[in-house]
Amino acid sequence: MRPRFFLPDIADTGVGSLPEDEAAHLTRVLRLGVGDDIDVFDGVGRMFHARVESVAGVRVTVRTLGPASAAPEAAVRVTLVMAVLKGDKMDDVVRDATMMGVVVLQPVVTARSEVRVASLGRSHRVERLRRIAVSSAKQCGRATVPDVRPPLELRTWIAGQAGRGGDGPPRHERDPAIVFQEPSLGATTALRDLPRAAAVQLVVGPEGGWSEDEHAAFQSAGFRAVSLGGRTLRADVAPLVAMAALFEAWQGW
Amino acid sequence: MRPRFFLPDIADTGVGSLPEDEAAHLTRVLRLGVGDDIDVFDGVGRMFHARVESVAGVRVTVRTLGPASAAPEAAVRVTLVMAVLKGDKMDDVVRDATMMGVVVLQPVVTARSEVRVASLGRSHRVERLRRIAVSSAKQCGRATVPDVRPPLELRTWIAGQAGRGGDGPPRHERDPAIVFQEPSLGATTALRDLPRAAAVQLVVGPEGGWSEDEHAAFQSAGFRAVSLGGRTLRADVAPLVAMAALFEAWQGW
Repeated sequence: MRPRFFLPDIADTGVGSLPEDEAAHLTRVLRLGVGDDIDVFDGVGRMFHARVESVAGVRVTVRTLGPASAAPEAAVRVTLVMAVLKGDKMDDVVRDATMMGVVVLQPVVTARSEVRVASLGRSHRVERLRRIAVSSAKQCGRATVPDVRPPLELRTWIAGQAGRGGDGPPRHERDPAIVFQEPSLGATTALRDLPRAAAVQLVVGPEGGWSEDEHAAFQSAGFRAVSLGGRTLRADVAPLVAMAALFEAWQGW
Repeated sequence: MRPRFFLPDIADTGVGSLPEDEAAHLTRVLRLGVGDDIDVFDGVGRMFHARVESVAGVRVTVRTLGPASAAPEAAVRVTLVMAVLKGDKMDDVVRDATMMGVVVLQPVVTARSEVRVASLGRSHRVERLRRIAVSSAKQCGRATVPDVRPPLELRTWIAGQAGRGGDGPPRHERDPAIVFQEPSLGATTALRDLPRAAAVQLVVGPEGGWSEDEHAAFQSAGFRAVSLGGRTLRADVAPLVAMAALFEAWQGW
């Protein structure tokens, strides 16, 4: 298998320069050079067989030779609306969700999140998560890099879903929303009993679960509640379990 | 929620001594003492409300006060037959599989495993994995601790499934086996099309996947092959994805 590189702006001419960190990975880590065969993907679904044409410091130029096959995308477009977790746990969530086939990742700050939106902005966390998404796409063979959005307060995100206010998300983000919750919080539905949709938003909570207010807000917004069994799942693997269950229920693999 | 402790031999009298590491956790980490309320579970399905009766060094005696509710067990009994992974990755597999509800965990050494059965024995890896299973059971609220078996060569395990030889596993380990594999290796079935069983063995491979010989051995043994989509899953999260898909397909949550 040829090593894969992210080349977001593949030119029509078939020649392009790798972004700086990709170029460094090619020359310094993999020790590749002129004439070596690689694959490049544009992050929005196209993968090409390519060859390194020139290397000059951090500037690596490649020429595409023809289409290459990428891992198939999931049959259901998943937006993961994920409560921000402590420490490095979001790194694992982004890595795993990318590998599972997530298309959009919307971090949300909830009542029981232990971080604030402002501090996330200062720490350049989103840039970091985007790099992880690129790296995970490479590893799992996808030509699509999920869109990691800037964090929102959960209530802002919910308001956008209801179409309130002029600053809500674009229409395609108002796909049906499924909230995963502990069965003790209230009645839940089985995934298989929900109508299959081509695109869906999966809403997954933080370590401490949802607050009563959040639960009430989900209900008023008309979201469907689903449980993943009675054993307490770690918050950082819950998105993976939720996506696997959804793909199985809806045959979205 | 009361802190939980593992007390494998809960006496009929209702009085018992915690194992040494559990006792140390109670006194040194949680700083509990005489009169404090805890829960104790026996690892085979029973959870009790209990009270600390005496503390003398590492000897902590507790008295059970009555039954307490544990997290429900999964409706399908899963044996995870898991290729041994590099480094600490098996720790995560055991932790996550326990949380998902696995009942038996059978590590197997495969053609592409980078460790040998003998070296696993020397490193006391199984003891370590058993401690992790206890700790994960505590966290997720199960009163059942999965049985972590000593590692076997994959071919030994397969031979035992076919009932060859007198040293094969007991009958209950010959439940139907489902092998998870990359779709490129051959035809696969959808989980939902397999007949639901009360107990099943899920066979998950290492980082490098199955060898051709192993694939052939699975086929001759009559195991069913299932794919989890075309994106390459990390070996250490594949068991989690496999169990989630199975529970959803068979409503085994």
